[in-house]
Amino acid sequence: MTLPFDVAPFRSAHPREMRRLIREEKWIYPTSGLCHCHVQANLIVLPKEWAYDFLVFAQRNPKPCPILDVTEPGDGEAKLIAPGSDVRTDIPRYRVWKDGELIDEPTSVAKYWREDLVAFLLGCSFSFEGALLEAGIPIRHIDMNCNVPMYVTNIQNRPAGRLSGPMVVSMRPVKHKQVPKAVLATGRFPAVHGAPVHIGDPAAIGIKNIDKPEFGDPVEIREGETPVFWACGVTPQAVLMKSKPPFAITHAPGHMFIGDPKDVDYAVF
Amino acid sequence: MTLPFDVAPFRSAHPREMRRLIREEKWIYPTSGLCHCHVQANLIVLPKEWAYDFLVFAQRNPKPCPILDVTEPGDGEAKLIAPGSDVRTDIPRYRVWKDGELIDEPTSVAKYWREDLVAFLLGCSFSFEGALLEAGIPIRHIDMNCNVPMYVTNIQNRPAGRLSGPMVVSMRPVKHKQVPKAVLATGRFPAVHGAPVHIGDPAAIGIKNIDKPEFGDPVEIREGETPVFWACGVTPQAVLMKSKPPFAITHAPGHMFIGDPKDVDYAVF
Repeated sequence: MTLPFDVAPFRSAHPREMRRLIREEKWIYPTSGLCHCHVQANLIVLPKEWAYDFLVFAQRNPKPCPILDVTEPGDGEAKLIAPGSDVRTDIPRYRVWKDGELIDEPTSVAKYWREDLVAFLLGCSFSFEGALLEAGIPIRHIDMNCNVPMYVTNIQNRPAGRLSGPMVVSMRPVKHKQVPKAVLATGRFPAVHGAPVHIGDPAAIGIKNIDKPEFGDPVEIREGETPVFWACGVTPQAVLMKSKPPFAITHAPGHMFIGDPKDVDYAVF
Repeated sequence: MTLPFDVAPFRSAHPREMRRLIREEKWIYPTSGLCHCHVQANLIVLPKEWAYDFLVFAQRNPKPCPILDVTEPGDGEAKLIAPGSDVRTDIPRYRVWKDGELIDEPTSVAKYWREDLVAFLLGCSFSFEGALLEAGIPIRHIDMNCNVPMYVTNIQNRPAGRLSGPMVVSMRPVKHKQVPKAVLATGRFPAVHGAPVHIGDPAAIGIKNIDKPEFGDPVEIREGETPVFWACGVTPQAVLMKSKPPFAITHAPGHMFIGDPKDVDYAVF
C-alpha cells in the first residue's frame, strides 16, 4: 500500500519547523524520512501513579524502550530533546487508551490532557535509518512512501510492577551481503534500539505471516533479501493492551515525535 | 597509600562465591580486580517515595548513572544481575546517610533495612578495566593494590525532581600514545560509564588538586602519562550530600556489588 504523502520536500526541514507544521495539522502522516539526521521518538503517556512502573519496565527492557526524555507531571514540554515543544499537539496522530482498549486516534490530545500525566519519549529506529542510507542500504518503506511494518513477537519483555507484555519489532528487508553492515551501522545507536534483535526466519520469533504486520504497512521482501528485525518503540502499546492501565496516550505507530538532537548525538562511536 | 589486601587470589573467583565471602565479612576491601570479567555495580538505596526522582535523574544522566538493576521495594535480591544475592550484606562496606549526612560505614546494612527501600545497582568503571588490561593498558591502582581515585567535578548533572548535584569521576593515568585506545576500549561499554568524559587538564573540570581525591586513594601520574577521567557511580553520593533525602544507603566508594553477568554482556559491539 502506497500512502498519499511525500516526505521528500520535508527531508531537510528543521525539527522545530516540522513540529509547527504538525501542530497546525498540515502533516498528519507517518514521519519516517522527515527531518533527515534528527532523532525521532515514540510516545507513551501514563498517569504519575503508573509512571514508576514504566521507568522500571524501560530499565529492564532497554532494547525496545530506550528513554530519551521524561516530562514533568502535567507538563507537555519535552525539555531535553525539544525545548518549546508540546507533546500534546506535536505528533501527527495519537492513540488514546482506556483500560487497555483503543478509544480514539486524534491528531491532538489537548482535550484528553490531565495534570497527573507523565510523557515518556522513547528512541525510534527511524533515527538510524539515516545511518543505513549512508551505508548504502536502501530502505524499502521509504522508497514505497509507506509506513514501516511492525509485528508483535513471542519475545517476552521482563515484567515490572503491573506492566508486562511481548516485544514489538520493526522489519526492513536487507540484501544478504549487506546484513552485516546493517548490524554494524545500527549497533552504533543503542539509544534508538541499536543492533537488530533477529535476522531471518520470522517464525523463529513468533511472526506467523510476514505480509500481515500488526502495525504499519507490509513491504515486499525480494529475492536475495533477508528480513531484519529491530526492537520497536510500539512495544509499550502491546504492553498497554495486556496490562490495561486505566488511561494512557501513545503516538499512532509510525507517527513520531521529532526531536532537536541529531542522530549522531546518540552514536556511541 | 598501599592497602593491606591482595586481589590476586580472587581474580578468577565466581561472583556468587565472592558475594558469599563478602557476606561472611571475609573480604572487607575495595573490589577492583576481583572476579575478572564480571560486572561490578554501585549501590544507591532510597525510600520508594524518592525512587521515581532517582529513576528520572538516572535517565537524564546516563553517563554517571547507568542503571543495571532495580529491586522490588523492601526486597534485597538483585534479580536481574545476581539471582540469590542480597544487596544488604553482599557489599564489603556501605555508607548510611541521614538528611545528606554520612552517619555510618558498616559492613552490613541488615539492621538499617526498611520495607519501603528500593535499591538501584549502577554500572561501574571497574567493569571495563578488563577491557583496558586486554588492550595492553596497565591500571595504576590495581598495580598499587589501592582504591581508584575519584573526584567531585564542576560538571553539573541535569536535575530531576528533588535531586541535583555535581558529577563524580574516576581517574586512571594513561600513556599518551595509549589514550585513543583507552577511549575506544571503554566506549564499547556505555552501560558501565563508557568512553571518558574528560582527558587531560584536571582544572578544566574543576579538580583543584589531583593528589587529593575526594574518594579513594591518590595514584602517581608518571612522565609521559595523561590523566583520563570517566563518569563515576559515586555521583549519587555527591547528589545525596546536596539534595539531602531523609534516608539513603550507598556502597562505600570502591567497595562494589559484584554481579553475575560478564563485562562483555554490556558491550555494544
